[in-house]
Amino acid sequence: MLSQQQLDRVCVVLVRARNPNNIGAAARAMHDFGFRHLRVVNEYAVPFASARSAVDASEVLGSAKEFGSVAGAVADCTLVVGTTAVGERALLHPLYALPEAAATIGEELARGGRIALLFGSEKTGLSNDELSHCHWLLTIPMQQHEDVRHPSMNLGQAVAVCLYELVRDRRAHVEAGVPAAAEAGEVERLTALLTEVLEQTGYTLRHPSNCDEAQIRRLVMRMGMMAADAPVWMGILRQMLWKLRGAQAGSE
Amino acid sequence: MLSQQQLDRVCVVLVRARNPNNIGAAARAMHDFGFRHLRVVNEYAVPFASARSAVDASEVLGSAKEFGSVAGAVADCTLVVGTTAVGERALLHPLYALPEAAATIGEELARGGRIALLFGSEKTGLSNDELSHCHWLLTIPMQQHEDVRHPSMNLGQAVAVCLYELVRDRRAHVEAGVPAAAEAGEVERLTALLTEVLEQTGYTLRHPSNCDEAQIRRLVMRMGMMAADAPVWMGILRQMLWKLRGAQAGSE
Repeated sequence: MLSQQQLDRVCVVLVRARNPNNIGAAARAMHDFGFRHLRVVNEYAVPFASARSAVDASEVLGSAKEFGSVAGAVADCTLVVGTTAVGERALLHPLYALPEAAATIGEELARGGRIALLFGSEKTGLSNDELSHCHWLLTIPMQQHEDVRHPSMNLGQAVAVCLYELVRDRRAHVEAGVPAAAEAGEVERLTALLTEVLEQTGYTLRHPSNCDEAQIRRLVMRMGMMAADAPVWMGILRQMLWKLRGAQAGSE
Repeated sequence: MLSQQQLDRVCVVLVRARNPNNIGAAARAMHDFGFRHLRVVNEYAVPFASARSAVDASEVLGSAKEFGSVAGAVADCTLVVGTTAVGERALLHPLYALPEAAATIGEELARGGRIALLFGSEKTGLSNDELSHCHWLLTIPMQQHEDVRHPSMNLGQAVAVCLYELVRDRRAHVEAGVPAAAEAGEVERLTALLTEVLEQTGYTLRHPSNCDEAQIRRLVMRMGMMAADAPVWMGILRQMLWKLRGAQAGSE
């Protein structure tokens, strides 16, 4: 359960990102999940400048800060976490899968800490020197494919997945809603109507073993009726009854 | 815990995706997380054709299937789930937050079902007509911003986040690893060496209250020493001792 104050103690640090679209995508994911502090470490300013000038550049990009070194970008943070696709690099750091890593980050935020979450360049990830600034590493668990030696995610997608995991529990039940279920009394009225329809159509006579009251009730219960749908079904059944009675009256 | 057979019963269905880069990004996320069945519903074939001809187009794109209608694309599926950013659309379907939705999808896969996961166009999402093919909807819980009426994610990022959640539990502990911790005996040897260094430097005399044996041991324990680091620290402390003794010998 991260508060906005806690989200504001997370810095996303993009190190040597080359593609302005990826910087923009990272900023967009931050905006989507409520994070505000983007830091960019780049030898040359071109990609950041073009990301910033994009038409739909967000607030996050507008307030992003540039740093000349990883050390500078993480100086005020109490926990520095690097992201890696693992690949063949020898591991010199503890490595956690994202769900576990997010739990630990949540604990550090709860203690009042400030987090830096580092993402490396699209081609090479974080260098060993850049990784040496990290307390530990996290990896997004991915499928292993025989044909690919270094699995790696698109930068914007990796940022989105990591930030989603950080806010996942906080937002798991926010805003989703299931329409109200119909009340039992309505289900009962529907059952009665359906029973009448089955009698009128002759179904009850042909399939008497399907038609005891409890069976029909269970059939209706299994529809998982929403409150808003109940009157619609009532109307449909009443119309059927009206038509069936007319047909019967006509044939008699 | 989804098996590959279960992943192969999930179809990602992109409906009216306009940007070939987004189709490519969706395919890349599928590949990253082990999903193989991409279906594309488009009125006109241009975006799909250009996505397919991209240099790094994956296997997933190569084997993707085109459909003329949502009905056709989901015909063999037992559970059809639409994705939505909610916005102002009146909800005509049950709506679940992604973590809950993923659990239900997992149950349907365990029962042998086949899932269609629908994503709408970048601009408008899924239309009411397209949504009417869905059993229920899922939404990725996002931050609400006062300035934006319709929060929505980039299509490629939304696909990545949804698929990550589907495989999240399966892969939570795969492949991550924490380097072995140092054995207690090594920690004890380090404690002894450090104690000697503190004595040699005069620290023990100046701060006797910090220096009982248990305190120094706890200080070393809190380093959370990795097995591979223990000999390095031993070497550093031995070198210090050597230098300190030399200095002392010289000054006597």
